[in-house]
Amino acid sequence: MPQKPSIPKGTRDFGQAEMARRNYIFDTIRSVFRTYGYAQIETPAMENLSTLLGKYGDEGDKLLFRILNSGDAFSGIDYDSFRTEEGYNSKALSLKVCEKGLRYDLTVPFARFIVQHQSEISFPFKRFQIQPVWRADRPQKGRYREFYQCDVDAIGSKSQLCELELVQIVARVFELLGIRVLMKINNRKVLTGLAEICGFPDKVVDITVAIDKLDKIGLDAVKAEMMEKGLTPEAVAVLEPVLTLSGSNEDKLAVMRKVMAGSDTGLKGLDELDELFGFIREAGVKLPCEIDLSLARGLNYYTGAIFEVKALDWEIGSICGGGRYDNLTGIFGLPDMSGVGVSFGADRIYDVLTGLDKFPSDLGSTTTLLFANMGAEEVAYVLPVASALRERGLAVEVYPDASKLKKQFDYADRKAIPFLSICGGDEKAAGLIQVKNLSSGEQKSFPKDNVDGILEFLAGN
Amino acid sequence: MPQKPSIPKGTRDFGQAEMARRNYIFDTIRSVFRTYGYAQIETPAMENLSTLLGKYGDEGDKLLFRILNSGDAFSGIDYDSFRTEEGYNSKALSLKVCEKGLRYDLTVPFARFIVQHQSEISFPFKRFQIQPVWRADRPQKGRYREFYQCDVDAIGSKSQLCELELVQIVARVFELLGIRVLMKINNRKVLTGLAEICGFPDKVVDITVAIDKLDKIGLDAVKAEMMEKGLTPEAVAVLEPVLTLSGSNEDKLAVMRKVMAGSDTGLKGLDELDELFGFIREAGVKLPCEIDLSLARGLNYYTGAIFEVKALDWEIGSICGGGRYDNLTGIFGLPDMSGVGVSFGADRIYDVLTGLDKFPSDLGSTTTLLFANMGAEEVAYVLPVASALRERGLAVEVYPDASKLKKQFDYADRKAIPFLSICGGDEKAAGLIQVKNLSSGEQKSFPKDNVDGILEFLAGN
Repeated sequence: MPQKPSIPKGTRDFGQAEMARRNYIFDTIRSVFRTYGYAQIETPAMENLSTLLGKYGDEGDKLLFRILNSGDAFSGIDYDSFRTEEGYNSKALSLKVCEKGLRYDLTVPFARFIVQHQSEISFPFKRFQIQPVWRADRPQKGRYREFYQCDVDAIGSKSQLCELELVQIVARVFELLGIRVLMKINNRKVLTGLAEICGFPDKVVDITVAIDKLDKIGLDAVKAEMMEKGLTPEAVAVLEPVLTLSGSNEDKLAVMRKVMAGSDTGLKGLDELDELFGFIREAGVKLPCEIDLSLARGLNYYTGAIFEVKALDWEIGSICGGGRYDNLTGIFGLPDMSGVGVSFGADRIYDVLTGLDKFPSDLGSTTTLLFANMGAEEVAYVLPVASALRERGLAVEVYPDASKLKKQFDYADRKAIPFLSICGGDEKAAGLIQVKNLSSGEQKSFPKDNVDGILEFLAGN
Repeated sequence: MPQKPSIPKGTRDFGQAEMARRNYIFDTIRSVFRTYGYAQIETPAMENLSTLLGKYGDEGDKLLFRILNSGDAFSGIDYDSFRTEEGYNSKALSLKVCEKGLRYDLTVPFARFIVQHQSEISFPFKRFQIQPVWRADRPQKGRYREFYQCDVDAIGSKSQLCELELVQIVARVFELLGIRVLMKINNRKVLTGLAEICGFPDKVVDITVAIDKLDKIGLDAVKAEMMEKGLTPEAVAVLEPVLTLSGSNEDKLAVMRKVMAGSDTGLKGLDELDELFGFIREAGVKLPCEIDLSLARGLNYYTGAIFEVKALDWEIGSICGGGRYDNLTGIFGLPDMSGVGVSFGADRIYDVLTGLDKFPSDLGSTTTLLFANMGAEEVAYVLPVASALRERGLAVEVYPDASKLKKQFDYADRKAIPFLSICGGDEKAAGLIQVKNLSSGEQKSFPKDNVDGILEFLAGN
């Protein structure tokens, strides 16, 4: 009995309708990246494990998909030497039989790319990359083992104009997609500054985690948590004005500037925020942008601006995010390459567009006109017309079999093809092409050379 | 010391210029597929090994990249039970620790897709798929371990109109790419017929292999080889008229029809060729198509038409090929699904376009206009203009740092940006935007609101 086919858990097939929607998202994003002069690159699905290991923490190392060495991967291995009290040492054994792994994100391969090709690259280097990544996460709703990332980065300049560009790109992408969003902006240096001014420079993470809970648990609980984490009441008192920040971004910056007076790093962070918000105003960006001190994604990684984008009309978490990093390529031996980037979450954007019913309605059908097959001679008659329409860019099908018309109608219906042409012996004899609008029922005949007339009728719908 | 980064052998990074060229090829092919109503699908990079194994022969099984099971892949394995006289049994062990493999081609995943989603698919199902595949082949010039395939198939109809469509698609793709090609066409049933009429129905492969050498070794040597393979002099005499076929496709078909009188299968193959060439004439296909009996690609796989496309002006082997198969999905339990498809060799097409210098010259630059950075205030002045131009679809950059002009010029030069705008204090005071054509030296100033004027100047080049 033949096997019942299936695909690995956490992976997906994309059929015609899903592809059309996904391509719509990617094409929109890509078109915006292009208007800002970002260049597309692609890196291999497989990287050397030496490139990937240690870059995502212990947890990340476990989630890497490893590729068995080709050839006799297991020959010459002394298994006894891998035996431990709890069984075999899988970690050590897998390093022995696997030299390659699947890309876990686009960031590390990008860093590797820059270092490997640095002599060919013109800096500042503005690149985007849209490729799948793989993670051996436990699959669950909305979390897949294969998914696309969509990253845009500018590396080799410390100017806040790079941050501005990303804000502009985000604004334009979601404007084109028709999703109302809010951009939250923070700065890692400000977080460092807060920890410094309250006298606990090593507690950046604890402080940020506590601030993040403000909405949920309230001011008093946040203060209590900070003290639990070892902050003194005096330190918490120093931070209090920051915990109750409100008003416009300018108001927030003004309060913070007072609090931050004792920290050079913090003041530098505020200068950066000031400059960025200045650029945002001057460029006329319409996207609402809000300073949010609780924003701490990738805290150990980012060194300046931190971004997160939320959909205003659909509950789903962040649909885009990123920030500035000062030493992306240091791990590969190229220090002092500051860059900033954001990543668009294609799967979540897909879910938001679906939830809000914002996908364009005409993505469904790939074909505009189906020529019915009324027999060999009649098909021969319409073939050149079909070719002429295709050369004008129209998507045209000729039904391959002279099946019953009912079946051909059904085909048009299931594929949502809006126009059908039935040309039998009469049309052929008269040199005419008949075309019918399947939704309105309107039908019209054209001399077979009148390709313009047919195109006009098809466009008029 | 940090590691020197590299990528696995046989894989490639694609930088900006290569991506632009590759996208040009894929976009061209995709645009043609779309005008024929083919729908794009994507399948996961990883398939279950049970889906892949045994589908590509023993050699293919060896070339599959296998993915180590996540978690403790090696726990609970009794290695001693895999010990053989020559060492450990890698094949059996790898099945134990790997359940998944990387896609080896797009055909088997397509078959799996059809069977798995058959209830959602409208047949005839016309799909295309452009995705990378992975093979653990020994890397060499022009052969990679990761490369894109670009497949188009119509499944669920036996009509020769499906073959015609593929011929038309091939014709249009290479017309748009500017590559002169020849399409060779054969039919598996004709090859079967030849073996039947000479009395050696089990020698199809030997006969075809011998015919294939005609150009190289000449008629007598081919006849000698056939006799070496066990054919009688009488059998060879029956085949001789076919070995010396010449003239037009019609001439060839006429000769073969006489020879083939004793084989129903052979005659059916000739009928199919007749019908296909009739359609090709009626549809006005301009691509030169030639019957070539030595064409035998995928002999065990194809059951009807066989296609191969060669570039006329560049020596490189086949750049596109395919054929009809009658039982693609049988392995997964869905019999009697006849289909026909071709695959475009993107890497070879890339090489032909490079060799013939046929890539459009304007693929190189992604950016049309660079605004030089003359300082914070001057940048603030040009930002809204840059935004307005981008909203009109133009690719515009603003140099992020107020570096020396020389450095900014160099950046424009290396990125092949054709226009530069230098707006300093004077332009700002006068409300003007200055734009310079970097190749002609022509420069002009526009009131900053005159976006149309700037666009016109940029387009005029």
